[in-house]
Amino acid sequence: MNILYDERLDGPLPEVNKAELLKALQHAVPDLDILWREDELKPYECDGLSAYRTTPMLVALPRRLDQVQTLLKLCHQHSVPVVARGAGTGLSGGALPLEKGLLLVMARFNNILHIDPAARTARVQPGVRNLAISQAAAPFGLYYAPDPSSQIACSIGGNVAENAGGVHCLKYGLTVHNLLKIEVLSIEGERLTLGSDALDAPGFDLLALFTGSEGLLGIITEVTVKLLPKPQVAKVLLASFDSVEKAGRAVADIIAAGIIPGGLEMMDNLAIRAAEDFIHAGYPVDAEAILLCELDGVEADVHDDCLRVREVMLQAGASEVRQARDEAERVRFWAGRKNAFPAIGRLSPDYYCMDGTIPRRELPGVLQGIARLGAEYGLRVANVFHAGDGNMHPLILFDANQPGELHRAEALGGKILELCVQVGGSITGEHGVGREKINQMCAQFNSAELTLFHAVKTAFDPRGLLNPGKNIPTLHRCAEFGAMHIHAGQLPFPDLERF
Amino acid sequence: MNILYDERLDGPLPEVNKAELLKALQHAVPDLDILWREDELKPYECDGLSAYRTTPMLVALPRRLDQVQTLLKLCHQHSVPVVARGAGTGLSGGALPLEKGLLLVMARFNNILHIDPAARTARVQPGVRNLAISQAAAPFGLYYAPDPSSQIACSIGGNVAENAGGVHCLKYGLTVHNLLKIEVLSIEGERLTLGSDALDAPGFDLLALFTGSEGLLGIITEVTVKLLPKPQVAKVLLASFDSVEKAGRAVADIIAAGIIPGGLEMMDNLAIRAAEDFIHAGYPVDAEAILLCELDGVEADVHDDCLRVREVMLQAGASEVRQARDEAERVRFWAGRKNAFPAIGRLSPDYYCMDGTIPRRELPGVLQGIARLGAEYGLRVANVFHAGDGNMHPLILFDANQPGELHRAEALGGKILELCVQVGGSITGEHGVGREKINQMCAQFNSAELTLFHAVKTAFDPRGLLNPGKNIPTLHRCAEFGAMHIHAGQLPFPDLERF
Repeated sequence: MNILYDERLDGPLPEVNKAELLKALQHAVPDLDILWREDELKPYECDGLSAYRTTPMLVALPRRLDQVQTLLKLCHQHSVPVVARGAGTGLSGGALPLEKGLLLVMARFNNILHIDPAARTARVQPGVRNLAISQAAAPFGLYYAPDPSSQIACSIGGNVAENAGGVHCLKYGLTVHNLLKIEVLSIEGERLTLGSDALDAPGFDLLALFTGSEGLLGIITEVTVKLLPKPQVAKVLLASFDSVEKAGRAVADIIAAGIIPGGLEMMDNLAIRAAEDFIHAGYPVDAEAILLCELDGVEADVHDDCLRVREVMLQAGASEVRQARDEAERVRFWAGRKNAFPAIGRLSPDYYCMDGTIPRRELPGVLQGIARLGAEYGLRVANVFHAGDGNMHPLILFDANQPGELHRAEALGGKILELCVQVGGSITGEHGVGREKINQMCAQFNSAELTLFHAVKTAFDPRGLLNPGKNIPTLHRCAEFGAMHIHAGQLPFPDLERF
Repeated sequence: MNILYDERLDGPLPEVNKAELLKALQHAVPDLDILWREDELKPYECDGLSAYRTTPMLVALPRRLDQVQTLLKLCHQHSVPVVARGAGTGLSGGALPLEKGLLLVMARFNNILHIDPAARTARVQPGVRNLAISQAAAPFGLYYAPDPSSQIACSIGGNVAENAGGVHCLKYGLTVHNLLKIEVLSIEGERLTLGSDALDAPGFDLLALFTGSEGLLGIITEVTVKLLPKPQVAKVLLASFDSVEKAGRAVADIIAAGIIPGGLEMMDNLAIRAAEDFIHAGYPVDAEAILLCELDGVEADVHDDCLRVREVMLQAGASEVRQARDEAERVRFWAGRKNAFPAIGRLSPDYYCMDGTIPRRELPGVLQGIARLGAEYGLRVANVFHAGDGNMHPLILFDANQPGELHRAEALGGKILELCVQVGGSITGEHGVGREKINQMCAQFNSAELTLFHAVKTAFDPRGLLNPGKNIPTLHRCAEFGAMHIHAGQLPFPDLERF
């Protein structure tokens, strides 16, 4: 499939001559691996969001910092756009290459530089895989908490660029909460240290600004993350509900009871059935919704919390609450959840995964709104999400071979995100804006806010060479897209009633 | 006392005519309270750091957003510098007014707008006192975690501007970790929303960027904070050590054991004696160092943790570990710590409080380094600090009436902060840079990093009207100050050996 995207709305890009750039690069960095043949470039034409595909002009695969530095200086000098890429597992087209730009693959920077068990930190290169950090820290009883579904493959540099999340974010925070320091290169090849090894760094918090900036501000060359001690025990409860609203209420009640689960996930009936068919996790296929609630910590504490959560779930209307009897069943319960996306992929030729975030109290209403919008657009929507922090992943099922369905799916997705914004939420929780949600940014922010984003971008990258066309829309795009800023509670869209 | 400061190093400020500005303001905002007589202006000449004093040209005390908006537009139009101020309790001269500028006092914006117990958030105006938020949330069993010593008086707007900390930061994070959303006005009077009510906001993380920006980027007009459930129980242990090094080791061991105390504070002998004389907290006056360790959470958990921490402390060499027998003793133990600054104020006509942060493992070495520097400069230094997160508050005792002592104290303070930077730490943990530490920023950052700070500043405030001369030094200042960037491990200062 190929979702329509009009890149003329992002303003003109500099004209770059491929042969000249190749020659200049080979001259400036003789030992740099560069891909330039069509068949070599093909594998880099998209990231985890396959809806958009563009063949890059050139792909550079550096191994050393000085190579990256020289490459950036050259690109800056010749006004060549640069898109950085880690493992390419992102889901919003953030690492999508440009036809007239260089794709800078940082995957070969894959060394763990130092694990400091006393300080509980790991200093690693940006191409190190998320899971590899936890594996390296395991002998010290430590781990790295943020765990996106792609953690076996995704790299920490990409995690920082996208401010990646995961099942454990509710308790342990997003990537930004688990970072101490990064080393970056500016587009001019200048080395900068953002953050520090200590509690806090003075001056502006450029570490947080950089986290989630999606490659628009600089190139990450080193990352120092915080490590956490592995919890003694982890238990998981599976609760069944005969309505999505009751499950939503249980989520709010658990949090209100002062319990912070390690993970708190919801799936609706369509998702439950798909996962059960695929994984045989032992899910109740007749339930309208299930909640998976993991509690971790020290033994006595977890035991008490399990009892309290069970009580809260039953009071909120759960028809059944089961605790995984052993580690094998716990892993099976999670396997169903973690494979929900591919499971739903078996139901439909194509699906489109959204990533809206809403205040928890709005869950029941927004789920009703999604169901209504789905019916209106004639498309099925499965819901799988990080319920505890209000991060929803509605999956729109469609068939790109049916005329018009792709467009309908895209339009429905946009409406769902706008609904999230209306109730005070946002258009992304953990997948980033990338190219995918760039139009919805016009709904999220007003023109003063967008102007400020551009001013910040200009502070780092005055010529706009780093990952153009992603994350921050041009004001021109927003004007063309026609969507104005939605203030929560207002209704600029006549077809969307407030529920 | 009056620490020397050469404001010419911050570049020229616009010339403003007081009478004309007063007239223009009275015309533009007829119902705005403005102070302009010398005796009215006097109370605003400094913040909590009384070392610097400047009489502001005018003080504005708005009550409504539209007044602030109009005022800012006018100041922007006429290039009038604006310094925002909350309660004025800051300790780094961040709210120090300008002779040729307007002091914008936000203290009258002191309404709690909404407490949402289900979402566990409070939406408040910037002049609301830190403690007042917890008091308003108490009926719901909730509280606001960051608790600077000044929490009874300091306002949340100032907390955001300085990214304030407190005893509980180790476990619950700094201000930035406890914020959801802020409303701000740009210097042009434009309303901006940074952050969102949901987990995460897309685009650049301007909320984090703004937090701790010390009034250089805009005026905070509304703050939405996260609330936490009050822990069921809190217990405190008091451990005595015959050397500061052993206490430092105990801190590292507690953290390494995977325990995260609610608070973990250290005091050295000079601080212990001063506090005991003043408060009669029951401290062991012969100990070289004490640790106060608070454990909070559910009953069973806290009980277990107390046993484990006691064991770790004894193994690290504690000569005695006492648990507060009851709530009254717990409060007394903390009262000694919380009054340590005024207690030390009784020992000496003047003291100068530093706020360096270092990696925890460097504690013993840095304490030795401070002792050596103190001897070298012939001044006593007491140490009181948030040991758990490596945030030190060395208090330099001196007498401003003795010729040269003020200068020696200031020079010693600078050396101590440079020592923090050398071991990979930073020149501030929670007090901010303000005017006080602006020279040390030249040691913390290289010129590429400082240039980037200026570029970010320009993105928000192109004319440099917001709080000029604070937080971010000019490159000219750094060149004049003569201190170049210290990379950890390097030694640009020949008189400072690496210990």
